[in-house]
Amino acid sequence: MIIVLKHGASEAEIQEINDRLIQEGFKIHLSEGVEKTIIGAVGDRSRLEGLDLEALPWVEKVVPILAPYKLVSREFHPSDTVIKIGEREIGGSQIHVMAGPCSVESRTQIMETAHAVKEAGATFLRGGAFKPRTSPYAFQGLEEEGLKLLAEAREETGLPVITEVVDLRDVELVASYADILQIGARNMQNFNLLKEVAKTDRPIMLKRGPSATLEEWMLAAEYILDGGNPNVMFCERGIRTFENYTRNTLDLSMVPALHTLSHLPVIVDPSHGTGRWQLVAPMAQAAIAAGADGLIVEVHPHPEKALSDGKQSLTPPNFQTMMSDLERIAKVFDRSILKGGAQ
Amino acid sequence: MIIVLKHGASEAEIQEINDRLIQEGFKIHLSEGVEKTIIGAVGDRSRLEGLDLEALPWVEKVVPILAPYKLVSREFHPSDTVIKIGEREIGGSQIHVMAGPCSVESRTQIMETAHAVKEAGATFLRGGAFKPRTSPYAFQGLEEEGLKLLAEAREETGLPVITEVVDLRDVELVASYADILQIGARNMQNFNLLKEVAKTDRPIMLKRGPSATLEEWMLAAEYILDGGNPNVMFCERGIRTFENYTRNTLDLSMVPALHTLSHLPVIVDPSHGTGRWQLVAPMAQAAIAAGADGLIVEVHPHPEKALSDGKQSLTPPNFQTMMSDLERIAKVFDRSILKGGAQ
Amino acid sequence: MIIVLKHGASEAEIQEINDRLIQEGFKIHLSEGVEKTIIGAVGDRSRLEGLDLEALPWVEKVVPILAPYKLVSREFHPSDTVIKIGEREIGGSQIHVMAGPCSVESRTQIMETAHAVKEAGATFLRGGAFKPRTSPYAFQGLEEEGLKLLAEAREETGLPVITEVVDLRDVELVASYADILQIGARNMQNFNLLKEVAKTDRPIMLKRGPSATLEEWMLAAEYILDGGNPNVMFCERGIRTFENYTRNTLDLSMVPALHTLSHLPVIVDPSHGTGRWQLVAPMAQAAIAAGADGLIVEVHPHPEKALSDGKQSLTPPNFQTMMSDLERIAKVFDRSILKGGAQ
Amino acid sequence: MIIVLKHGASEAEIQEINDRLIQEGFKIHLSEGVEKTIIGAVGDRSRLEGLDLEALPWVEKVVPILAPYKLVSREFHPSDTVIKIGEREIGGSQIHVMAGPCSVESRTQIMETAHAVKEAGATFLRGGAFKPRTSPYAFQGLEEEGLKLLAEAREETGLPVITEVVDLRDVELVASYADILQIGARNMQNFNLLKEVAKTDRPIMLKRGPSATLEEWMLAAEYILDGGNPNVMFCERGIRTFENYTRNTLDLSMVPALHTLSHLPVIVDPSHGTGRWQLVAPMAQAAIAAGADGLIVEVHPHPEKALSDGKQSLTPPNFQTMMSDLERIAKVFDRSILKGGAQ
Repeated sequence: MIIVLKHGASEAEIQEINDRLIQEGFKIHLSEGVEKTIIGAVGDRSRLEGLDLEALPWVEKVVPILAPYKLVSREFHPSDTVIKIGEREIGGSQIHVMAGPCSVESRTQIMETAHAVKEAGATFLRGGAFKPRTSPYAFQGLEEEGLKLLAEAREETGLPVITEVVDLRDVELVASYADILQIGARNMQNFNLLKEVAKTDRPIMLKRGPSATLEEWMLAAEYILDGGNPNVMFCERGIRTFENYTRNTLDLSMVPALHTLSHLPVIVDPSHGTGRWQLVAPMAQAAIAAGADGLIVEVHPHPEKALSDGKQSLTPPNFQTMMSDLERIAKVFDRSILKGGAQ
Repeated sequence: MIIVLKHGASEAEIQEINDRLIQEGFKIHLSEGVEKTIIGAVGDRSRLEGLDLEALPWVEKVVPILAPYKLVSREFHPSDTVIKIGEREIGGSQIHVMAGPCSVESRTQIMETAHAVKEAGATFLRGGAFKPRTSPYAFQGLEEEGLKLLAEAREETGLPVITEVVDLRDVELVASYADILQIGARNMQNFNLLKEVAKTDRPIMLKRGPSATLEEWMLAAEYILDGGNPNVMFCERGIRTFENYTRNTLDLSMVPALHTLSHLPVIVDPSHGTGRWQLVAPMAQAAIAAGADGLIVEVHPHPEKALSDGKQSLTPPNFQTMMSDLERIAKVFDRSILKGGAQ
Repeated sequence: MIIVLKHGASEAEIQEINDRLIQEGFKIHLSEGVEKTIIGAVGDRSRLEGLDLEALPWVEKVVPILAPYKLVSREFHPSDTVIKIGEREIGGSQIHVMAGPCSVESRTQIMETAHAVKEAGATFLRGGAFKPRTSPYAFQGLEEEGLKLLAEAREETGLPVITEVVDLRDVELVASYADILQIGARNMQNFNLLKEVAKTDRPIMLKRGPSATLEEWMLAAEYILDGGNPNVMFCERGIRTFENYTRNTLDLSMVPALHTLSHLPVIVDPSHGTGRWQLVAPMAQAAIAAGADGLIVEVHPHPEKALSDGKQSLTPPNFQTMMSDLERIAKVFDRSILKGGAQ
Repeated sequence: MIIVLKHGASEAEIQEINDRLIQEGFKIHLSEGVEKTIIGAVGDRSRLEGLDLEALPWVEKVVPILAPYKLVSREFHPSDTVIKIGEREIGGSQIHVMAGPCSVESRTQIMETAHAVKEAGATFLRGGAFKPRTSPYAFQGLEEEGLKLLAEAREETGLPVITEVVDLRDVELVASYADILQIGARNMQNFNLLKEVAKTDRPIMLKRGPSATLEEWMLAAEYILDGGNPNVMFCERGIRTFENYTRNTLDLSMVPALHTLSHLPVIVDPSHGTGRWQLVAPMAQAAIAAGADGLIVEVHPHPEKALSDGKQSLTPPNFQTMMSDLERIAKVFDRSILKGGAQ
């Protein structure tokens, strides 16, 4: 930690900081330049809590040197985490595509979609049973009935299921049906929910909050690892910017950034990331080329009748076309999509 | 609702949309321009759900005409909502300042602060017992012990208490101690939490999410009103932008914007809104001049020892100076701060 | 400057950096912590150019300690700059309101507006002769004819004129008519234009770019001071964010921030800052309460017929109402608006 | 154009709008719903200028239906524009990589780089002679000397040259040396500069402004086409967001978005788009997979000694590795990089 003092800080003021730092077990290095005095403090990062030195009027700024996360960091855990779900491995050479409707709406809809996406090469079925919706008047999901339909579709197709949990009271319920628990973008910093899913034995897909920095996102994952669940995958789904031609701005640079800073797998959601089905295939291609370990994509047999997100859903034929292009890109990087890991 | 069709949409495609709209009870107006065909649809806003016409390839865009909220809207409820808490009224001519530490840390700290802010003219005591923290390693609050200390401070000073509820399992607990429940910025779209606080008889202060638009914020309030609790006040606390000299960008234009569109009171938080105590007083002044119905301000007797947010906390003497300036601005608008409503 | 090395940097790598720093005249302090090695470098800020140490693979990050600006900084020039234009002083106890139409459209329009705003207490006349417009098909201004009309209006009313210069070939021309040269938001980093206006003896109003940080804005002003013109005032006019109820997000926290970091006056533009005339008066009030040294406001006798920005223009009666409210706020801070400085 | 009236607009107010619209040659359709009255106006888009109906107090909002651009639009010009520079074609099946240093610093540096990038498969040489720099104290480029060195490097290697023009007085000078003129991000809305480059016969690469929407970017291109120069390529180089791990947020969704809305080629700049050389190759791969027609990449033989942007520059060996990966991705889409178009 570097503490930069304001021009004109007195000896007594400098001493006060030094005393507090030494008391907290830090080693101190003082540099007095012509214009600024700087204190370098080396010590245990856990002691930094409770030191809010920027509140002192003679401190100009405090620059942290160590990253505030640890368990999610590649420095701490150099080799890639590979998450196993049955025979499937996320984070290895196989790239997984999770596909399905935004919301589970009916047995017919989810079965039709599940078969279609499986045939095209998807290896997980996605579908929302509990839907966080901006308006109280919008369709909020079939709830447990939706979970049952997802389980039924898994039974029929063999596709493991990923679905969102939005309420910490439902974690056990959702975990009893789902193979992967999704934490949605709006809940990325719902810390008590993170603590609850940390207690389950299900892998967690942690979506990036629409205004979350890379560091905040990694710290949210740190909550889950710190809570005892090591199987976390990140999901980039776009951030909120001034551009509104797209629903969000899909920030693919997070894929290589996360692969540099962390050992956890990275999934990309081009459906929410763009909000327009016409842009989904190109951005899915780009995600694979950027090194993503998987995709999560909305597919609906009749998008114009979807109860949510029809505008960004692919039809099964469009999904199929996309998948075969993706396979060819994956091969450039010696990875594979269509083998599916479980067939 | 206006549906703009792509150049070259066929008669059959136009007919398909018309049929669906008529089936949903809409009246249709068709305008065929030289370059674009436009369909105007007039009907019941609740039937719009389940129509995702932008998913149709021949639809260019859909422009909603009606606002998606209703209960929070001034069109629906023209006169100002005034929220009564004991003898205090929020939303009337009295401006209320809620002050206290970011976190309740100890009996000494909260008592010392409560007396200091009361003396300076604050009419509510703020303090966090449950703290949502970006890092799992940061101080997470005293929890119920903190609530008890807040209640004790109310006992001693007569100041009603506002505190945040972060977990929907704690709503009843927090409501049993607090006079106003605060929904924090990160929970603005934690819809199930909104539904829970809607069931209490406590007024709710709804902070704006760091990347929430005005419309999303109003819809979050709509959840609470729709759930049965009419006593909601908005709290502008800054949005996330590229500027990082300040912790957030305090968007004071929301004060007059909300007063135009809604009947609910508007509070401003210049502490989180700037993240620097030096900017708190000028922005508090600006908030009152923009028409805010109240402020929520962080005050700590020893900011440099605070367990959270010391950098943005005022000392009691600085708070006192600010309050007397604020009173003079309030008078320009025939409002008052220091009378306090309950003394 | 602090250089943080990656975990595992070798002795030779550390030496290479030290050698380069010493060669550039820096004094070096080395801190080897358990997890990170840190190099502190103290020296002449002008030698930092040409050192791009973050390009070295074993450097994690470089943290600058000194601000990159100097002439605009309050550390360098502690007392407030007061800019004199005839008998008017910008940056002193008198607050100046610059008012007029977005574009000069005709003699009738500019004369009618000039008289109206003067009567209401404005002390400068604003009006655009050269208009930077997003679309090539939009009205681009009356150009020199517009300048002549502004000069004529000054003749009649005694109000000095502020107008924008957009093309560096026109600087001399515009300076021959105008009392203050405005650099528009889109040109804040048009550095050659900044260098040209630096050569004139006219005060410069430098608008903030829609995505400019505080530091970039101060550096743009530094170009003008460094070029020989000390009379620069900042103008906050809103930044671009995700919120689009307002045209821009008016960032009033820049007013006290600039007053802390710089000695130059700060003007606020609530018209572009909000884009809605209904929000102009409340935000003008807020700007004064935040400490602004002046305002620039769009007024048009017939906003619905304006060739640009009618939506955000006040009518003369609305302007007059606003001015008397502003005067009362200014008095709270022992400042004055209506005395006008020159009457 | 759709005009939505406020609840309670009177007959006379509706009539006033209708009269003005009819006077401007529009055909009118009136829809009176239960809650809102809506006026649809069909007519010539060029007559919309000078109608600022949102300034009327009884108008709630005006929704434009037609895009404000025309010449850049694919509706207007359905087939792809292919720009020919000697034997090279931009916008066809050949993908072009433009590479070189941020700034031309010396003969040795530019020659060494030019040979290296050519050998690796680049087909254009980039290099800055006039540098817009945030600080007045930063290296501003070698100016005409830099142009001469670029021309010399072209002579030796056969690589055509792309370089930025920042001052409209230099357009002729730069055009006399360069094969493609680059408009930098900060100048995207320097409209007079756009008008000047429109008069040359050189192709223009138009970088996206850091806070420019897709529509504003297309309108900036419209200025150049409208000014007589049809050979414009877009260059996505990242937008400014809250995320600051990366220098900018590279918005690759603009590649397929522009290919949908416009006929002009799209180039991607992963160097400025990320600001970190470690992210350049993955994002270059992603750009090609998203459909980009070319890349512009910073390469410097000794990035740690670069006078600008060393942190984001590739070394020649890293560039070479990247190029062979790119070639394999291009082939997936039946495009080619290494053939170079001119060998």
